[in-house]
Amino acid sequence: MKPRSSGLVGERLRRNDLIRKVRGEVRYTDDLKLPRMLHARLLRCPHPHAKILRIDPARALASPEVAAVITGKDLPRRFGIIPWTPDEYPLALETARFVGDAVAAVAALSERAADLALRQIEVDYELLPSVKDLDEAESKTEAGLGASGRDNVSKRVDLAFGDVEAALAASDLVVEGSYTFEGTAHAPIEPHCALAQYDGDGLLTLWSTTQVPHYLHRELSRVLAVSPARIRVIQPPIGGAFGGKSEPFALEFAAAKLAMVTGRPVKLLYTREEEFYAHRGRHPMAMRYRVGARSDGSLTAVDAETRIDGGAYSSFGLVTTYYSGQLLTLPSFAPNYRFSSTRYFTNKPPCGPKRGHGSVQPRFAFECMLDRVAEKLSLDPIELRRKNAVDASSTVNGFRVTSNGYLECLARVEEASGWKERRGKLGRGRGLGVASSAYISGTNYPIYPNEMPQSAVQLKVDRSGVVTVFNGASEIGQGTDTLMATLVADELGLDLGAVRVVSADSDLCPVDLGAYSSRGTFMNGNACLAAARQIRDKLVAAVAAKLEVAPRDVFVSRGYLCAVGDERRAISVTDAIALAEARFGTLGATGWYKSPEGLGGDYRGGTIGASPAYSFTAHVAEVVVDEQTGVVRVEKVWCAHDCGRALCPTLVDGQIEGSVYMGVAEALLEEHVIDGRGLHRGPNLLDYRIPTSLDVPDIVSILVESHDPEGPLGAKEAGEGPLHSSIPAVANAIYDAVGVRLDRLPFSPGRVLAALREQGGR
Amino acid sequence: MKPRSSGLVGERLRRNDLIRKVRGEVRYTDDLKLPRMLHARLLRCPHPHAKILRIDPARALASPEVAAVITGKDLPRRFGIIPWTPDEYPLALETARFVGDAVAAVAALSERAADLALRQIEVDYELLPSVKDLDEAESKTEAGLGASGRDNVSKRVDLAFGDVEAALAASDLVVEGSYTFEGTAHAPIEPHCALAQYDGDGLLTLWSTTQVPHYLHRELSRVLAVSPARIRVIQPPIGGAFGGKSEPFALEFAAAKLAMVTGRPVKLLYTREEEFYAHRGRHPMAMRYRVGARSDGSLTAVDAETRIDGGAYSSFGLVTTYYSGQLLTLPSFAPNYRFSSTRYFTNKPPCGPKRGHGSVQPRFAFECMLDRVAEKLSLDPIELRRKNAVDASSTVNGFRVTSNGYLECLARVEEASGWKERRGKLGRGRGLGVASSAYISGTNYPIYPNEMPQSAVQLKVDRSGVVTVFNGASEIGQGTDTLMATLVADELGLDLGAVRVVSADSDLCPVDLGAYSSRGTFMNGNACLAAARQIRDKLVAAVAAKLEVAPRDVFVSRGYLCAVGDERRAISVTDAIALAEARFGTLGATGWYKSPEGLGGDYRGGTIGASPAYSFTAHVAEVVVDEQTGVVRVEKVWCAHDCGRALCPTLVDGQIEGSVYMGVAEALLEEHVIDGRGLHRGPNLLDYRIPTSLDVPDIVSILVESHDPEGPLGAKEAGEGPLHSSIPAVANAIYDAVGVRLDRLPFSPGRVLAALREQGGR
Repeated sequence: MKPRSSGLVGERLRRNDLIRKVRGEVRYTDDLKLPRMLHARLLRCPHPHAKILRIDPARALASPEVAAVITGKDLPRRFGIIPWTPDEYPLALETARFVGDAVAAVAALSERAADLALRQIEVDYELLPSVKDLDEAESKTEAGLGASGRDNVSKRVDLAFGDVEAALAASDLVVEGSYTFEGTAHAPIEPHCALAQYDGDGLLTLWSTTQVPHYLHRELSRVLAVSPARIRVIQPPIGGAFGGKSEPFALEFAAAKLAMVTGRPVKLLYTREEEFYAHRGRHPMAMRYRVGARSDGSLTAVDAETRIDGGAYSSFGLVTTYYSGQLLTLPSFAPNYRFSSTRYFTNKPPCGPKRGHGSVQPRFAFECMLDRVAEKLSLDPIELRRKNAVDASSTVNGFRVTSNGYLECLARVEEASGWKERRGKLGRGRGLGVASSAYISGTNYPIYPNEMPQSAVQLKVDRSGVVTVFNGASEIGQGTDTLMATLVADELGLDLGAVRVVSADSDLCPVDLGAYSSRGTFMNGNACLAAARQIRDKLVAAVAAKLEVAPRDVFVSRGYLCAVGDERRAISVTDAIALAEARFGTLGATGWYKSPEGLGGDYRGGTIGASPAYSFTAHVAEVVVDEQTGVVRVEKVWCAHDCGRALCPTLVDGQIEGSVYMGVAEALLEEHVIDGRGLHRGPNLLDYRIPTSLDVPDIVSILVESHDPEGPLGAKEAGEGPLHSSIPAVANAIYDAVGVRLDRLPFSPGRVLAALREQGGR
Repeated sequence: MKPRSSGLVGERLRRNDLIRKVRGEVRYTDDLKLPRMLHARLLRCPHPHAKILRIDPARALASPEVAAVITGKDLPRRFGIIPWTPDEYPLALETARFVGDAVAAVAALSERAADLALRQIEVDYELLPSVKDLDEAESKTEAGLGASGRDNVSKRVDLAFGDVEAALAASDLVVEGSYTFEGTAHAPIEPHCALAQYDGDGLLTLWSTTQVPHYLHRELSRVLAVSPARIRVIQPPIGGAFGGKSEPFALEFAAAKLAMVTGRPVKLLYTREEEFYAHRGRHPMAMRYRVGARSDGSLTAVDAETRIDGGAYSSFGLVTTYYSGQLLTLPSFAPNYRFSSTRYFTNKPPCGPKRGHGSVQPRFAFECMLDRVAEKLSLDPIELRRKNAVDASSTVNGFRVTSNGYLECLARVEEASGWKERRGKLGRGRGLGVASSAYISGTNYPIYPNEMPQSAVQLKVDRSGVVTVFNGASEIGQGTDTLMATLVADELGLDLGAVRVVSADSDLCPVDLGAYSSRGTFMNGNACLAAARQIRDKLVAAVAAKLEVAPRDVFVSRGYLCAVGDERRAISVTDAIALAEARFGTLGATGWYKSPEGLGGDYRGGTIGASPAYSFTAHVAEVVVDEQTGVVRVEKVWCAHDCGRALCPTLVDGQIEGSVYMGVAEALLEEHVIDGRGLHRGPNLLDYRIPTSLDVPDIVSILVESHDPEGPLGAKEAGEGPLHSSIPAVANAIYDAVGVRLDRLPFSPGRVLAALREQGGR
């Protein structure tokens, strides 16, 4: 039996950017400076909904420090991440739809000069009727925010699988519930930043804190009316994104246009306040569920009605609306399902995808519902989930499931948390809650229709023993660069330090669709392996010829290629590269990934959200509730996650820990609330509370490896899945602790106290 | 008949870096700045030959502005571009061998602080006997500069082809002559500069003004004892090189070591004065020739004895010594040949390769000799050359000649200059002179023995219609980047602006051996074509499938791939890329070039200088000699050059014009003279006179295309060949004008006056 690999995969290695990051050597977008660079700022509308009557930049332009002012008229083409719903102008053209909608941009010699210039721009507005929440969105049709102008609807999806009404009628139990998810922001440490350069040859280079350089490239070309061949998009290292940088933003177009107008490099950095208005955070959702079950605990049907507050623009809303229903059908589900989801426009900062896009909110509702079903049937909630685990190879809505470690996840958290012994027995004020979830490893279809690969990796092999990975994927902190380096080093027997990863530069790297929907490991990993194996085959062939053995009798170990059965007959990888280069010519390879043909869905069909593979998660949370103050403290979380195979276990742990951290924060702390005037309640990191390291619970991450047959060495996603069940696990633990069911996020002291008072009053 | 290409090859396009260069947007090495960067300077020995007894940096280190001082002991490994003669230390270890030999390096907060610190370093020397010129090098053996320590010999080559003595004895005429070439410097506008960064992960990145990033990479690894896999070498755009940056220099090792020692980036920029001491310029040569001929003008034999002043170190000297004899056997030559060349060490700045390495000096001598032979036999010198043109497919020394446009070159300059009507008939003081030459298009063997490709290009194809050329070759102003872009654009039907060229970065680009011996067009061009054609084949196949025609019925035109016979059936290149990507996966390709197997020679053999193809040149110069002042003015030069095929005619013209400019400058102005104390006579651009645009003669460049069967689309070199014959053409024109033969460069007013006086006295 020859070793499969040189042993880096599955090892606990450190990230390849770790030292550079902790030493401050990494240069983020705002660290970049170019000669003659100008600074730009955006002028934002102070009204929730207003017609722009006049913009006069004359006073601003009179300043010798101001280089240019542009308005919507300078960029009169709409954009949007989803090709069917382009409804934004880089700078509002006729109408501004929320407080914070950009209406003009200034480039000046300094940020301060640009700031001062903003105040010198005169804008006349005519106020229009505005919509502040879902109720107004339904009733106040005269605002006409929808595409037709006759209502405020952004997107509606009604899908049914099986006969839900009949199944509910035949159920022993039907539980109904309503849940509200308030919406949260991404709050990355690094704000959005773009730097544009337009050189003498007419080449536009844009450095941007984007998660989707390829889509940005396309949209820049379309909106600026510049050939894509004359645009280069570079994504520098990113200081947090979480989905908040996964579509084009006003700043990218504005910086680019200002660079073109002035002939000078232009940088535009959002303030922290602007982050909250640019937003694209998690959608507020109002959810109504009916869940039917038989008395033995078998679920019979799920009926869901969801209203989604989209804010001012479409963003990914089309997808969000599908995801709010589609991604619920794993891991424990009923054989009949119907959902009706409607996304409305409101005059607030636009919502978009945040880690666990579209499905974190319904997952919260549904997993709380399951807790209630179990209670009504006097079943252990873990048993209920186990009983209803979807074990077929496809789901009620037709998703193909190729690997499933869900039951192991459940068993592992059950055991690790001492569930059987401890749940319900910890005394009042302390409780355990369980929840589970599943998530996609990328979606089968790209955002714009095409039949090209979704991910690609090109390798360059240097005779010095260096392999460079040109990798279109976006390193946003999740560690794709380290993953690619690990896969290549492992396949070729190299040290991690001998692999360079160049990512997300449209000039240098092949196209990858971006860092969204947890596609990196699965798609990019497969592309990378495909490329590395071409090189490996050549090294093996060259070494086999040299050692006069058959290629199948050569294996790669760390640093060497060896003859099977006689490891002393070994040739260093560097020498093997030289042999292969002499034999086959200079070594290079391109690998790519494309979802298997014929896997469900498109944007008009019912299988949006179909993925080549699904991850599974189970959470148990332990909470302490202070009944005097209403403060909930999450003491410990056990999270088991089926990532298929943990290629870089430290990174998977990091993703699990980050997901739990973020989920617990959303459960307890974060509130993205826009008031009736369209103003954010506290657009800063004092009022908008993300947890410090002291606020994070103990986290036990448990890696479950189901070895997906189509994943790279068996791997699936880990970046978003583990977030989903963390919120309902906390909610269910609160119920176990103090007997109140919270149906609205966050579980702030006020809400907990109110629920406790209501409980006492009953 | 379908078009061969989309029509960019052979067009007069502008360079792809032109606009950026004239707008000052190009960032050269010294334009790069890194956070926390230190500045370094070298302390240089003030004695021509001295033992280093003690170096005490204590006083320098006492300054708070000084970060580090290193000496030879910190870098105790020898280096050298030729693997058999590594005789330099980055900083002299025990002995300094010329005024200017570096003995210590300082890194400080500013260049000024580093300069001041140099004065604080105490060095005790013991003076050693020194050698100032070729005569002393032969006689003063006690200096012991040679490898044995018993003489001053650097390299000796004696080669004979045929029976020279018998042929001379049987000749009707034997002409003898002695010539002296004083030696010249490269005088690039951009001085040498290196910037080193050693990051927290132990990766050393070196930006350097080098023409040979690959060899530098190897030598850095060896001298610094750092794995090559932990080194990245980047060559930024270069402001002139001409061979003067084609080996590692003290500054690169010193900057790298100081960065490693201090943990901070370190930049080291040579002053203009240091440029002249770092040198590696054209070797002074003392040449004695005997040339035999029959009365009909047939040459019978050539006997050459050459003494070469190498300066303090070996540099490329081994190759120089061969080249001084080997590269003379084309285009007009005799069937018997013998040469004896000896390179000596002297205590002067080391000589190396300058444009036309090793062969410009003997070409001057030999072409002047031919003029004398023609005169003695009363033959037209063009007729003499024509009669002795080497028309066989190989030379007396065994070089294989695959294409030869020499006779056309001669005919073209003969006609263009009005030679037949005007030569000898322009009156005293004005004259015409002819000379011709041949040169290599790269050498068949790399500098270190290996069987890997000499050049490689990797292509990345983006669905936006951009193709990126990862190109190991060094753009040093000669235009290889533009050439690569032209070849790729032409093959694929793209605009030049849609092709990005990334060059000379060891992390990003495959290995190319560097910009020397005029190898770029031939080797790199072939590599590039090989890669582009792989992509082209895929585009054609995808379009053929789409149009339902056979691939042979698809042709590439500008912007489109079309069906033969019906050009309305056309698919844009961008769409073709998308079709091909959907069909074949993400597009990428690697192409490479390796000299044909079995082509002569190695460093021990007699065919050093063998090239896959040879270029040919003929010059006619028209001069005016002022007999009162001795001032020679070159009024016009006609230069016909056989470059195989002019892929980028504007670039070929530029190379011809640059060669003539440089040749005329060496003929008339430049003097690199080191005095008896080892000091340069005028190490600055006031005293060392390179011509301004006002000093350049009218140049008529004539492109001759012989279509080499192995060249990329037929092309051969153009960068060095046209320089060779410019100097003897001027010398021969002076003779035509005023009847004096100058045998020593430069033809300065003093020398011309002296020769005229001698003539008058005769």
